[in-house]
Amino acid sequence: MSAATHDQPAAFQWPVRVYWEDTDAGGIVFYANYLKFFERSRTEWLRSLGIEQQRLKNETGGMFVVTESTIRYLRPVRLDDELIVTASLIETGRASLIIKQQALSKTERIKGRTGALLCEATVRIGWVNASTFQPERIPAPLLNQLTA
Amino acid sequence: MSAATHDQPAAFQWPVRVYWEDTDAGGIVFYANYLKFFERSRTEWLRSLGIEQQRLKNETGGMFVVTESTIRYLRPVRLDDELIVTASLIETGRASLIIKQQALSKTERIKGRTGALLCEATVRIGWVNASTFQPERIPAPLLNQLTA
Amino acid sequence: MSAATHDQPAAFQWPVRVYWEDTDAGGIVFYANYLKFFERSRTEWLRSLGIEQQRLKNETGGMFVVTESTIRYLRPVRLDDELIVTASLIETGRASLIIKQQALSKTERIKGRTGALLCEATVRIGWVNASTFQPERIPAPLLNQLTA
Amino acid sequence: MSAATHDQPAAFQWPVRVYWEDTDAGGIVFYANYLKFFERSRTEWLRSLGIEQQRLKNETGGMFVVTESTIRYLRPVRLDDELIVTASLIETGRASLIIKQQALSKTERIKGRTGALLCEATVRIGWVNASTFQPERIPAPLLNQLTA
Repeated sequence: MSAATHDQPAAFQWPVRVYWEDTDAGGIVFYANYLKFFERSRTEWLRSLGIEQQRLKNETGGMFVVTESTIRYLRPVRLDDELIVTASLIETGRASLIIKQQALSKTERIKGRTGALLCEATVRIGWVNASTFQPERIPAPLLNQLTA
Repeated sequence: MSAATHDQPAAFQWPVRVYWEDTDAGGIVFYANYLKFFERSRTEWLRSLGIEQQRLKNETGGMFVVTESTIRYLRPVRLDDELIVTASLIETGRASLIIKQQALSKTERIKGRTGALLCEATVRIGWVNASTFQPERIPAPLLNQLTA
Repeated sequence: MSAATHDQPAAFQWPVRVYWEDTDAGGIVFYANYLKFFERSRTEWLRSLGIEQQRLKNETGGMFVVTESTIRYLRPVRLDDELIVTASLIETGRASLIIKQQALSKTERIKGRTGALLCEATVRIGWVNASTFQPERIPAPLLNQLTA
Repeated sequence: MSAATHDQPAAFQWPVRVYWEDTDAGGIVFYANYLKFFERSRTEWLRSLGIEQQRLKNETGGMFVVTESTIRYLRPVRLDDELIVTASLIETGRASLIIKQQALSKTERIKGRTGALLCEATVRIGWVNASTFQPERIPAPLLNQLTA
């Protein structure tokens, strides 16, 4: 990826509440479900830029898919906890993006303060043809919206 | 639904194991997840009749959707438990089916015996156009496969 | 259930956005996932009455579980759609509650207007000992909070 | 982690079928759901060694949690596809394990042959006190079972 690196982007923030559906019999959020939280934050970040994915797919025949993710789980999260889930675009290429994401505590209970880092991920997103799933260049107008 | 009622159908049976993903912080299977188990059993019942839903959609442009379900939760189910999940076609109409489903214990731990009823559901399935989601008549060859 | 019936309760309302995680390959919300939406709305309704379920479990050793639900699926819901999910207490007994829930469209796209009914459910909730899962009487202070 | 590295472990294999619940509106398996598949395979690998996690938690007061995972998504997977999901212990430390996992095609449709690599992950698992979630040494008998 011949990439542009963005210095210290201001992170997009999205609140997430933990419901029964998110937890498992260990009493904490099931490890796969953080990927749902991160996806919601990315979707809302795109929406904040005027990008609706369903409409985008209808109009361009393309869609974003995740091609790689690295996740570190730092502290357990429990039912009723409130999180802030961030999304920051840290690299843009011709066919893919790299997004840094964090889940931070909004609930004082966790470590006796708010803002503690609970989970973080680096996610690579590729642009593909929505029928064939072949990688394609991100359409220029979309790339402009993303990096404006 | 001008329906044919089937007497005492032999129930299709499908084994399901309970994993972390199925449980919640109460220590038991989350109530929505039984609908996943029931769906798996219906899908495997259809497959046992030679019906693959993805291929069916490609070939006919139609698909089954659930239009109604009633579920009774009788006993809690825990991590590592094994279930038998049944599917019995009890009514067929022109545009819909009614399927009776049960989740039974395969694990001796539950009530000290196997076969205890854990959860049961009655599910109405309609046939719809896969693009418009408008109800349509179930294609005759499909109906024949279902009731053969 | 020797029950008190409540006339026309003002429904509690909770907004829900449809994300990728909620949809399936049919292009619409997977039928089990409405039960997640309904659970979120019930949890937020309880919270609006000052009831936090994790704390309640720690303090009383009891918890609510769903014992029965009936769901009608009326219209398909798609990615990016916005819903209003209601919760209304319609009956209270000594050991259980009956809650009526609706998912209404907040998105004009559906039927060209907002407010269209998409899915509805009647859910019976029982109070159980959180270790043994045996039904028990709902603690009086809790019952007072629910019906105040 | 003062770790033992295992050369070319024989991978444990577990079959997984793709159901509606696993897919999203893109027509393919939702990216978080591979973590469910990988968890199932790890659980069955443990079971094949005589380790039941629920019983283990009851007996030792400890449990495994995922502390890190890296996932590469190589090819899209669709409804009805069949996968083989592997689990190989590649490193054991005093308080954690590293497990390599792959999802391979069992369906000829994918790339016209079976065995194509669809998704792979490296997962670090830590042993924690099940109440406090503090890291602890893996009990010696458990470690013996894992590396026997």
